[in-house]
Amino acid sequence: MTDTHTAPDGDLDVFALASRLSSGHVADNVEILNQLEPHDAAAVLVLLPVETSIEILDKPELNFGAEIIEALPRQTATTLLSGMSADMAADIVQQLEEPARAELMQGLDAATRATIEGLLAYPENTAGAMMTTEFVSVPASWTVERTLQHIRQVERTRETVYAIYVLDAFTRRLVGAVSLRRLIAGEPSANITDLSRPPITTSPLTDREDVARLISRHDLLAVPVIDKAGHVLGIVTVDDIIDAIIEENTEDVQKFGGMQATDEPYMQIGLLEMLRKRGGWLAVLFVSEMLTASAMQYFEVELEKAIVLTLFIPLIMSSGGNSGSQATSLLIRSLALREVRLGDWWRVAMRELPTGLLLGAGLGLIGVVRITAWQKLGFYDYGEHWILVALTVASALIGVVTFGSLAGSMLPFLLQRAGFDPASASAPFVATLVDVTGLVIYFSVALLILRGTLL
Amino acid sequence: MTDTHTAPDGDLDVFALASRLSSGHVADNVEILNQLEPHDAAAVLVLLPVETSIEILDKPELNFGAEIIEALPRQTATTLLSGMSADMAADIVQQLEEPARAELMQGLDAATRATIEGLLAYPENTAGAMMTTEFVSVPASWTVERTLQHIRQVERTRETVYAIYVLDAFTRRLVGAVSLRRLIAGEPSANITDLSRPPITTSPLTDREDVARLISRHDLLAVPVIDKAGHVLGIVTVDDIIDAIIEENTEDVQKFGGMQATDEPYMQIGLLEMLRKRGGWLAVLFVSEMLTASAMQYFEVELEKAIVLTLFIPLIMSSGGNSGSQATSLLIRSLALREVRLGDWWRVAMRELPTGLLLGAGLGLIGVVRITAWQKLGFYDYGEHWILVALTVASALIGVVTFGSLAGSMLPFLLQRAGFDPASASAPFVATLVDVTGLVIYFSVALLILRGTLL
Repeated sequence: MTDTHTAPDGDLDVFALASRLSSGHVADNVEILNQLEPHDAAAVLVLLPVETSIEILDKPELNFGAEIIEALPRQTATTLLSGMSADMAADIVQQLEEPARAELMQGLDAATRATIEGLLAYPENTAGAMMTTEFVSVPASWTVERTLQHIRQVERTRETVYAIYVLDAFTRRLVGAVSLRRLIAGEPSANITDLSRPPITTSPLTDREDVARLISRHDLLAVPVIDKAGHVLGIVTVDDIIDAIIEENTEDVQKFGGMQATDEPYMQIGLLEMLRKRGGWLAVLFVSEMLTASAMQYFEVELEKAIVLTLFIPLIMSSGGNSGSQATSLLIRSLALREVRLGDWWRVAMRELPTGLLLGAGLGLIGVVRITAWQKLGFYDYGEHWILVALTVASALIGVVTFGSLAGSMLPFLLQRAGFDPASASAPFVATLVDVTGLVIYFSVALLILRGTLL
Repeated sequence: MTDTHTAPDGDLDVFALASRLSSGHVADNVEILNQLEPHDAAAVLVLLPVETSIEILDKPELNFGAEIIEALPRQTATTLLSGMSADMAADIVQQLEEPARAELMQGLDAATRATIEGLLAYPENTAGAMMTTEFVSVPASWTVERTLQHIRQVERTRETVYAIYVLDAFTRRLVGAVSLRRLIAGEPSANITDLSRPPITTSPLTDREDVARLISRHDLLAVPVIDKAGHVLGIVTVDDIIDAIIEENTEDVQKFGGMQATDEPYMQIGLLEMLRKRGGWLAVLFVSEMLTASAMQYFEVELEKAIVLTLFIPLIMSSGGNSGSQATSLLIRSLALREVRLGDWWRVAMRELPTGLLLGAGLGLIGVVRITAWQKLGFYDYGEHWILVALTVASALIGVVTFGSLAGSMLPFLLQRAGFDPASASAPFVATLVDVTGLVIYFSVALLILRGTLL
């Protein structure tokens, strides 16, 4: 990308790039700027028309918004921040370091500053933190005609007009919502309240996942966020929600993979931070998995007597982990889609029990066939008691796979019951949980079946 | 739920339920019907006003649309199908069994039938299969005023008016799009083309994930689907996309958990189907994991000489699997968010190499501390060569974790390169891949370090 925008001396040709950006699509512009260092991006931004720069900074896809704002002359930065949508501006201010943050806030007009401070007060990933404070509201006394005129004259620059919110003329409480489609279809002389419907609303502390579910359930384009008195604080739009859902869900895959979710793009995570995000979980799992060593030390005598048993340890343990991670992922989905509720745990367990038994029996059968085949074909000699060994492996598989399915399916319920997101269950965690139990099951079954022969 | 709607004789009181539904929110109505058997739901639907039934059938959250339609009198069913949005009607027809399907299609008017057949011809999960054929288009010669009038008179019942599509008056090719907001803000006498912008479009065979990305990237409410000649076939709306993204992403978690994705709600999957969806993958992983038994048979002599080595097999194998599944989930996210591209594989490998080495070294250190502590505190005796054993475990951990990180991070690239979704990589698959190699690394390191002492 940079080669086409370098001046003869090899430096970035910011003028050529700025001229290209001023005629480009905003989404493309964001991609181009994402490939530059923040101070280079800032050097390009100062050359662009203010509206173009604002449009770019308003896109959540821009990677280094805060760094770019910090690299700009303070005067330009405050102008851009004031022009941005309040939710995006608040996001950027939040990421700024002192003293830049204080200096920039100082430069903003009082109203914008108050709005941004208000938004920053809400916890991350809540409706309050996501909402934009730009929305169109009209008193209940207005007609359709007057509302249309108002939109034409006052609100034409607002990007986020998806619905008109009707407020009680005196208390300014939200009494209704009118979609643009209904507004257009309405008689000009009709009262706005004739068209409005009781609004679906949310509160500022609602989690973004629940806001997403509300918007999806009612097919809304925006949902108003109201305080306890019924005043509109802002709206969360469908754009914000889509971005949030995509982020949330790739985060869920990361968590399921057993690591702390990352916000930054992969290539921009420093080595130290990468080690911190991955090392913590890995170390916790490692220490828990040490219990397997303890379990094996406990069965030391049996191990020495029947080394043939060790051959199947990885096979049996991994089968338990696999069936567990299947069950967990299945239930994470079902709980997320609300197909299954917390109270259904018992019914789920009663379905997982036969499923686990049959899956384990299936794997056990494959195991017996394999051991018999190797023994008969002379690939390996499992000893004179090979039939009992095969029986041990098969029985252990039934036990381990059943335990894996049960434990894996109950974990998301436990997490939800404890107030956590069921999607924070991870495959490595499930595997670790099942590994230790798997070993104990295996050796207990072995003691039962092989006592008097091998053991 | 049912207790409040049962007649004195214990049967479902469909009349009471119908009267409750006719005054309820559609989303709530869907939830209530989802708890009934399809033929009961049908018995309630026939008692509702046609518009209410259509609204309910149009919701993607309804579980048994096809079964309900099948249970209705044919006459009612065709009326409802004709009134539904074309994309939802096509979804239902697709799930119908013969002869109901043919009979119902026969009952539809020719235009609706042709539309549904057209939609059914597109492969699942493409823009063509998701799109609705209801959209508002006007010739380029119209004014804003005339367009508004058209919407008021003709299109007032359309739910999906998010933008107006401007067609060339002669060729009927798409030349522009006007958002409702811009339409309202426009001068009534202005020509519609003065307001329109070049449209962002997609083709009918585009995958739904790409359509979602397009809508999210450009903050659209709907994207027109056009054929090669530039004619509009339909539009995919943001509602459909939200539903699709939620479904797609919970599917990704399932795939990452190592099972075939399920469409049906958990409680409605029969035992046989459950075994099929889970058993296949589980058996494949089991058979692959059998290689661990082969690997251990290969190192049989070493195993017999140094039983102490077996104690750490689960620990070392699981650490490799965990680091691999972390790396895989990290790269799945980065590829999905387009932070990393196919060509970046080498740069990613060069980041994973030091990360893996350091993470492995960290775990190795914990391992050495643990072995030393147990030995010194007298919890367990690892033999006279315990220092060499600790060294073996630590070195093997470095090797296994590094291999896990590299293999786990490269797998999503390989899948994408081969034309698969990187998100079809699964944690159990990664673990299995790393398990076998992990054993080989462990025993090779042991041979190197312990030769002449234990081995």
